Amino acid sequence: MIHVAVLGYGTVGSGVVEVIETNKTDINKKSGAELNVKYILDLRDFPGDPYENKVVHDFNIILEDPEVSIICETMGGNEPAYTFSKKALMAGKSVCTSNKELVANHGPELLQIARENNCNYLFEASVGGGIPIIRPLNYSLTAEKIDAITGILNGTTNYILTKMDKEGADFEDVLKEAQEKGYAERNPEADVEGYDACRKIAILSSLMTGKNVKFEDIYTEGITKITAADFLYAKKMNRSVKLLAMSKETEDGFFAMVAPFMIPTEHPLYSVNDVFNAVFVHGNMLGDSMYYGRGAGKLPTASAVVSDVVDCARHQGKTIMCFWDAENVSLMDVADTKRRFFVRVSADKKEAAIAAFASIAEVNAGFADEFAFVTDVMSEKEFNDKIASIGGAINRIRVEA
Amino acid sequence: MIHVAVLGYGTVGSGVVEVIETNKTDINKKSGAELNVKYILDLRDFPGDPYENKVVHDFNIILEDPEVSIICETMGGNEPAYTFSKKALMAGKSVCTSNKELVANHGPELLQIARENNCNYLFEASVGGGIPIIRPLNYSLTAEKIDAITGILNGTTNYILTKMDKEGADFEDVLKEAQEKGYAERNPEADVEGYDACRKIAILSSLMTGKNVKFEDIYTEGITKITAADFLYAKKMNRSVKLLAMSKETEDGFFAMVAPFMIPTEHPLYSVNDVFNAVFVHGNMLGDSMYYGRGAGKLPTASAVVSDVVDCARHQGKTIMCFWDAENVSLMDVADTKRRFFVRVSADKKEAAIAAFASIAEVNAGFADEFAFVTDVMSEKEFNDKIASIGGAINRIRVEA
Repeated sequence: MIHVAVLGYGTVGSGVVEVIETNKTDINKKSGAELNVKYILDLRDFPGDPYENKVVHDFNIILEDPEVSIICETMGGNEPAYTFSKKALMAGKSVCTSNKELVANHGPELLQIARENNCNYLFEASVGGGIPIIRPLNYSLTAEKIDAITGILNGTTNYILTKMDKEGADFEDVLKEAQEKGYAERNPEADVEGYDACRKIAILSSLMTGKNVKFEDIYTEGITKITAADFLYAKKMNRSVKLLAMSKETEDGFFAMVAPFMIPTEHPLYSVNDVFNAVFVHGNMLGDSMYYGRGAGKLPTASAVVSDVVDCARHQGKTIMCFWDAENVSLMDVADTKRRFFVRVSADKKEAAIAAFASIAEVNAGFADEFAFVTDVMSEKEFNDKIASIGGAINRIRVEA
Repeated sequence: MIHVAVLGYGTVGSGVVEVIETNKTDINKKSGAELNVKYILDLRDFPGDPYENKVVHDFNIILEDPEVSIICETMGGNEPAYTFSKKALMAGKSVCTSNKELVANHGPELLQIARENNCNYLFEASVGGGIPIIRPLNYSLTAEKIDAITGILNGTTNYILTKMDKEGADFEDVLKEAQEKGYAERNPEADVEGYDACRKIAILSSLMTGKNVKFEDIYTEGITKITAADFLYAKKMNRSVKLLAMSKETEDGFFAMVAPFMIPTEHPLYSVNDVFNAVFVHGNMLGDSMYYGRGAGKLPTASAVVSDVVDCARHQGKTIMCFWDAENVSLMDVADTKRRFFVRVSADKKEAAIAAFASIAEVNAGFADEFAFVTDVMSEKEFNDKIASIGGAINRIRVEA
């Protein structure tokens, strides 16, 4: 029997207990041993809960119990999750986490501690919820040189953008509705400003390079400036607007960014709607591949945590390979990265815009007081200089091929 | 150093050598050792080829060399691949294969021999070419009870159907073009009759159930009867026609089948076009997930074979878990499975059709001499009886929700 402790009996933590209970026959078979949830750590009590007698309030009870060999950290946030995870790993207990913030902040350090103590720090649930993406990157695409990852990594913003696209609604109205439905937090900043997607692409970029991509270095722009009018233009262009998190190895260097992009209907990410997430991976031998599924939610996320538990159970006393060194990757300045831009300026700037950008493709969505166009490929710096020279734009959205 | 032999220096086999050479730094790092292609088995000589001095004609040279611990079987077909694979595994040499026919025919037996000899029989490349799907099923979705798999598993037929959809062309014309371009074999039967997809869904269904799903038991229908007119109707219904390979756990039992289906634009498989493949997996905790990529081709397929080689290199002397028992799964008779059907009958049968099917939804694509409709959900048997009672249909295509 393998004893497991769950840290945090919130949405994901209670999901972990539910998944282990619901699918126990299959999970035990695949683990090669019976899994038993021995402790649940939470500040609260849960009277009447079937697992109430497993609830403890002191982490040291778990840490000092030699029977516990696997810990699910589903608390979120940096502290006390960081201290608990570190202590657990130093005691040779494997940690499986859904905590993207902690993984993005301390991944290489916690992986190193796991290696030194012959146990594992696994984090399949930290990116893409239930979508298997960490394990495919680490175990499946091992014959590839991965040169680009592009993901829709945040369910809340994808839900909002999908609604705006389908219903022609404005950002504020859809956000309010999403909050009422519980799809968005009361303080939606982490989602709508792209911070959540930023941490996730930092993790994927680190696995892609084998080194550390600091999330603080990643240029991040949210969706709060996207309007119903932008979607009308997008439709005219057979496109939609998606919040993309991307990292790419280019001739000029490695870059990573999070921002809204216009993508065409033929792009496989175009059909990724509502709360679904997807990760598009390009390798030098395989070409394009994509991984799609539910990026959040209690049971999908918990399923990913439990798949890590099964992996730990199979590899007791042995560290599973994961290349993520502490050495920081130096990222290109986003100003030097190149792409096309969709731009809306007031109608009186039409001549100036044409003069400044030389070669453009006009887009008409029926707004008489505006002039809208798509630029040629240019650096962000060049684009910003040109737009500044004509006194700024109503809005601009990056265009993905 | 780990010594590898490649059996068959055709498209995939030469791809394996190319992938190992091109990405050697990354592959060796991930293998934890340097990989060396020591032998290439082929009946032919390859004068001038950079690897010509590695070519041997006698399998026993490989079998009897104790240095060789991993063998890539990229010959295809049953014999001599079966005999060679068996002998290799009995000698404790791991086998990585792209040979779906052999895996579908002898999977459980070869896996058992591998277990008995502490080595591995891996077959990531046998389904979906370069798409990681075998490993995600075996290693990632371990906390799930998978209850349905639906795939576009054959690139040739998907290319043909995509062309028919986009260009309004007829089957025979597109097939001819595909043959000229090398996307279809001169004898296209295995692809267009669904036999290739059938073997692949047999493999996936076996991994889903942990038992053996015999490909001979799977109802299989190809795409040769699909016409340009069918696509006109499909468009009217906001649908397309795709060759789906599916297996499902239902209340009435387990079924598997390969057949053309009409699927709606919102279905994630709708956007899987040209030679791309995708596998849609439903689990009881995760819900829907999808894996998408190149289902064939030299380098994508070779990349999957080499990812198996890396896995073998990491697990020398240890068998990696794979649940696929020899016990056969008994499949439902397809006649008892239920769904809706799209039907075209001659105009003079309109009244009879309405009388026979009671509740129908008419579809009009402008053919005056036809009456077309979609039925309610009913068993295949009930549908066949009703259609027989009105003297048959011009065509009928199953409808997927």
